[in-house]
Amino acid sequence: MAAVRILVASRLAAASAFAPLPGRLRLLSPDGQMPPSRSALHGSAPRPGAKVAVVLSGCGVYDGTEIHEASAILVHLSRGGAEVQIFAPDIPQMHVIDHTKGQPSESETRNVLAESARIARGKITDLAKLHAANHDAAIFPGGFGAAKNLSTFAVDGKDCQVNRDIARVLTEFHQAGKPIGLCCIAPVLAAKVLRGVEVTVGHEQEEGGKWPYAGTAEAIKALGAKHCVKGVAEAHVDQKNKVVTTPAFMCETALHHIHDGIGAMVKKVLELTRK
Amino acid sequence: MAAVRILVASRLAAASAFAPLPGRLRLLSPDGQMPPSRSALHGSAPRPGAKVAVVLSGCGVYDGTEIHEASAILVHLSRGGAEVQIFAPDIPQMHVIDHTKGQPSESETRNVLAESARIARGKITDLAKLHAANHDAAIFPGGFGAAKNLSTFAVDGKDCQVNRDIARVLTEFHQAGKPIGLCCIAPVLAAKVLRGVEVTVGHEQEEGGKWPYAGTAEAIKALGAKHCVKGVAEAHVDQKNKVVTTPAFMCETALHHIHDGIGAMVKKVLELTRK
Repeated sequence: MAAVRILVASRLAAASAFAPLPGRLRLLSPDGQMPPSRSALHGSAPRPGAKVAVVLSGCGVYDGTEIHEASAILVHLSRGGAEVQIFAPDIPQMHVIDHTKGQPSESETRNVLAESARIARGKITDLAKLHAANHDAAIFPGGFGAAKNLSTFAVDGKDCQVNRDIARVLTEFHQAGKPIGLCCIAPVLAAKVLRGVEVTVGHEQEEGGKWPYAGTAEAIKALGAKHCVKGVAEAHVDQKNKVVTTPAFMCETALHHIHDGIGAMVKKVLELTRK
Repeated sequence: MAAVRILVASRLAAASAFAPLPGRLRLLSPDGQMPPSRSALHGSAPRPGAKVAVVLSGCGVYDGTEIHEASAILVHLSRGGAEVQIFAPDIPQMHVIDHTKGQPSESETRNVLAESARIARGKITDLAKLHAANHDAAIFPGGFGAAKNLSTFAVDGKDCQVNRDIARVLTEFHQAGKPIGLCCIAPVLAAKVLRGVEVTVGHEQEEGGKWPYAGTAEAIKALGAKHCVKGVAEAHVDQKNKVVTTPAFMCETALHHIHDGIGAMVKKVLELTRK
């Protein structure tokens, strides 16, 4: 009975299957298993547009990807007609932060790929399988995951190491002349891997609390990159290196300004894929 | 040294504090503890506008809040000038779903409030403290958390129970004549608690996979509510009950259409707060 179609983009049918027939209202399958889906966020119909890889680092600002930055990137890519594939490394998180307390859990471990899948609605691929040859651009949202799981920047600052696959992917896209977008703290990854690149993490002074992480600009310079001052609604484009950055949550401001700044970044990345 | 200001709205300074002084690049404090923040998503400056409570149910579509729906709600509320406070119940999740596999973890338990705090960037309040007297409206994003943690709809369908505080909050806002917004599967909460209410969960036929959960409309009717057919970009307004709903991820479509439909819902909710 009940031909619950496995066409679902949303996979919301997932652990249940919202009763497709009257009278069949029991919604959770016995094993809680979900059918595979073809597309999690962008519908199943073929769409023209740039093929963009989005690289996540977990799910939650303090130990993973900043959720609203990732969502904004995906909304703007969707609006720009891009074909999106989401990736994350299959590695343990540095730690798990209880976001109500801001403290690490002593006993808990979580996997970066599995947690990132929450943002990707299950449609995610191991970062090891990301190759620049298959995509037109790559975009990295911020959140502490970029500085804890994709690199050791949160601990080691300018002496940080970058995850090997992250370094490989950045180098591949750069060498292929394909654009790279990054926001918030993620530009430190490009600053470390692509010597002499221009990036922004916002303003260079705290300005009474509006730019509480203003000191990050110094770290960018210490990594050998050039820091360019930009506002939260702006994206900086390094035309030579095709690297596009925006401050996002480096700025203390209302959420829609961050959403719009990320929109500016995504738009520039998509423009560069057409050049 | 280093007067790292605790003014941060973003709490990104959090477990570290992006080096505010040159040479201070070690970013993680020894205990990984984060300072309290005054505002997580909307800046610290006083802003006029409606006071809106947003009620979460975890973090991730299959066992909690649908992340992109929550983010869209917060972006549109921010753009509408609302003053937002985020709530979630301090209860265990029904289960934890590995979003890469769609299967429940046998051994893991997570707390709805703690996981919701990932979306709220740490700034979240126990649902027990939410009272309609302190707010002008309440909004509930979807995701399986609404059907698993805020109610038993995923298991019991029309015979579901609604979490006691959720039922109390819905009743309080309704009795006070204050608007309630819900999207995706969350309208089942209103359908169960507010007898005879009008809601939409989208279309009533699958239409070749575009509305894979079309059968949910029957469940809405079985709960004693009226189902109104709407497209993903639309919001249905029950003027009498001041209940506003939109299909969101009940529809298989591109993410920006869902973002825009949620924008329509938020706009109607804010309009109703001014009436």
